[in-house]
Amino acid sequence: MPQPQLPEPAHAQVDSMLSRKFGKEIANYFSGSPLNRVSFLRTDHAFLSAALRHPSTSFLLFNSLSPLARDPTKLEYASFKDVQPLVGDDPYSKNEEQMVSEYNSSVTVPQLLFLGLDEREKSGFEWTIYHGSPYFALDVTPKGTICSTAEKLIESMKSRGLQFVEGRMHMSLPAEQAAIYAQARALLDWNARNPFCAQCGQPTLSINAGTKRTCPPKDLASLINTTSIGSTTATTPTADRPDCATRKGISNLCFPRTDPTVIMAVVSADSERILLGRQKRWPKYWYSTLAGFVEPAESVEEAVRREVWEESGVTLGRVVIHSTQPWPYPANLMIGAIGQCTPGGEEILLKHDPELEDAKWVTLAEVKEALHVGTSGLGEEAGEGYKEGGLRLPPRTAIANQLLSAVTGGFLEGGNGGSKM
Amino acid sequence: MPQPQLPEPAHAQVDSMLSRKFGKEIANYFSGSPLNRVSFLRTDHAFLSAALRHPSTSFLLFNSLSPLARDPTKLEYASFKDVQPLVGDDPYSKNEEQMVSEYNSSVTVPQLLFLGLDEREKSGFEWTIYHGSPYFALDVTPKGTICSTAEKLIESMKSRGLQFVEGRMHMSLPAEQAAIYAQARALLDWNARNPFCAQCGQPTLSINAGTKRTCPPKDLASLINTTSIGSTTATTPTADRPDCATRKGISNLCFPRTDPTVIMAVVSADSERILLGRQKRWPKYWYSTLAGFVEPAESVEEAVRREVWEESGVTLGRVVIHSTQPWPYPANLMIGAIGQCTPGGEEILLKHDPELEDAKWVTLAEVKEALHVGTSGLGEEAGEGYKEGGLRLPPRTAIANQLLSAVTGGFLEGGNGGSKM
Repeated sequence: MPQPQLPEPAHAQVDSMLSRKFGKEIANYFSGSPLNRVSFLRTDHAFLSAALRHPSTSFLLFNSLSPLARDPTKLEYASFKDVQPLVGDDPYSKNEEQMVSEYNSSVTVPQLLFLGLDEREKSGFEWTIYHGSPYFALDVTPKGTICSTAEKLIESMKSRGLQFVEGRMHMSLPAEQAAIYAQARALLDWNARNPFCAQCGQPTLSINAGTKRTCPPKDLASLINTTSIGSTTATTPTADRPDCATRKGISNLCFPRTDPTVIMAVVSADSERILLGRQKRWPKYWYSTLAGFVEPAESVEEAVRREVWEESGVTLGRVVIHSTQPWPYPANLMIGAIGQCTPGGEEILLKHDPELEDAKWVTLAEVKEALHVGTSGLGEEAGEGYKEGGLRLPPRTAIANQLLSAVTGGFLEGGNGGSKM
Repeated sequence: MPQPQLPEPAHAQVDSMLSRKFGKEIANYFSGSPLNRVSFLRTDHAFLSAALRHPSTSFLLFNSLSPLARDPTKLEYASFKDVQPLVGDDPYSKNEEQMVSEYNSSVTVPQLLFLGLDEREKSGFEWTIYHGSPYFALDVTPKGTICSTAEKLIESMKSRGLQFVEGRMHMSLPAEQAAIYAQARALLDWNARNPFCAQCGQPTLSINAGTKRTCPPKDLASLINTTSIGSTTATTPTADRPDCATRKGISNLCFPRTDPTVIMAVVSADSERILLGRQKRWPKYWYSTLAGFVEPAESVEEAVRREVWEESGVTLGRVVIHSTQPWPYPANLMIGAIGQCTPGGEEILLKHDPELEDAKWVTLAEVKEALHVGTSGLGEEAGEGYKEGGLRLPPRTAIANQLLSAVTGGFLEGGNGGSKM
């Protein structure tokens, strides 16, 4: 399968003293969204209401985290008219204060996200000094009180020859669509994973156009339940809920979670070999760079050294961060680094944390050759020119590939060694 | 107040091709822990049990997130004998499977964390190929069924002339103690913020020596409650709890949360000025670099450009990551970057996201002078030589200071421009 182009963010490659010293910026797959998130407008319901109902507005629909698409290489969008039966005439007619005070956990509200404005499109949509085509995402998974309306919407999309594409789409979408998909998927998944407050256990409400969840002080559902089931206690029915610490000041629990992850190309002390590892479930001959989660109160540089030692026994000195990649399965931020071994620190020991089936040192020449003929997604065949038994590596859409390309392309000598096409 | 030394991690400064090209690694305050976390041993209860009860073991106690200390410049540790009345003879006598199956949400279990081994200390503690003095942290906040035992422990510590130091300790602890404190504080705070499962709303159980929370399928408390209060329904009392998605496969909700944050020194297109901003609540003349949270599905480089534009209207091109800093208030990973303006992109506009009271361009010479005489913590006086009206900046323990030092120290020309002392 041909690999998609990598993104080219608008300003990243402007010539500057910084770019002359450090080389071109590597923009990894899933980054490079064309949308301006105008994040400060997410609480402005007059703006959201106007953007939602503009004729130029695009809605990316998801059914159980699978996006609507023509095929796995092209997302398709719905219009406001399409989604109106599900979201109503104006879900932003009330402000957030009203929404919180009228919270009722027994009513299913379809999850809607404002993604941003595509300022390149002269759509006629304007709001004070901002303009462009608005983009939203909408979860149409049939559930709760919206079940049958959602099912009808899904059927009407399928009748147009469209489908909800399952699985990971990271090998096939063009870069800009991949970035829009990643933003929507990450936020829908976060909302779906956090219907309850981790601080107090009570149901939460989505606000800020899908980018915040709050723990309301009242729930009208408790009034309804008390009335319909009948209370066995002597207390007066009330919508008030128990106190919650997240209502005082700012709690990070109310905001989307992103898990920082380190992924690193490890170079030998003599700069001539690279450390690669493999997991048991991977295809034969397929290796990659080492990776792992950043722990609390650890710098990225320390996390790189700890993970490399734990997984391979190898001891690293200087670590330099190369580039980063959002990874929406479910919510990782991959921080790509290059680290160099301490002299004598190259001995491999897999038994500390037995996560890898194998780890080995490979010459720069062998890695370079594999980057040329042996790259592919995990479920795909290697490229043309690959000979059975040769090293296989991740595709260009993976930051591991970019890190290896950087090292074999001269990162330690000069420039950033990127392998952009 | 004298500023503490910055950390010097063991291997980071070993000479290598990477360090010759990129200069010395900047290790920021709160990183540089002397402990080996041996994270893969956290599920091994035989190891934890032996480590906990070894005579060389140190326990860092926290009361409502305030650590035990001699004074704000020196942490103090308790011994196993001190904490035994609270934690019991061996809280690791049962394995995790047993703990989960016997889960009872009505019993308060004091939160205990295994932090790691200090391998420099010849303590006599050995476990297979690992050795060193074990470090644990323990939450002694009086609450629930452990209230009076915890109060007694607190009193016995105070009777030794020790105190639980309130507030942020980031200005005064020596670097290695600051890193141990940061790890313990971040993990205790995460456990305290997440007593319930965000996926299903039910209480959760701490496992993996304080680094994981699980949603048990049974809760013995529901049996007890049903029996003592008396059930009004016809169902048989059961300890079984409703299904939860976090019990199938791996859920990130079970693991500590770390929020990636960007903080950036912004350089003008001609490389002669730096962009600084200030918040209204800061002392007069006090400025810093801009900063903000990374959003879902955004690379670090994109987050830097977005935040700078949203807060100041300035447009950035190339962004390079300089160094990182853990920040345990409550769980941030500060990713420090240096970005350069696009030509003509320097115009300041504060009205997009009105978070800053002011933003301005300052010459490199003025920043250099302020780094020399005008640095301090937010609540402190500026240093000697500072003249009223001059620029004030954050202290060396803040990554903002390191980024500004890098730029004024020649980061764009060569080396990393760090200002280590």
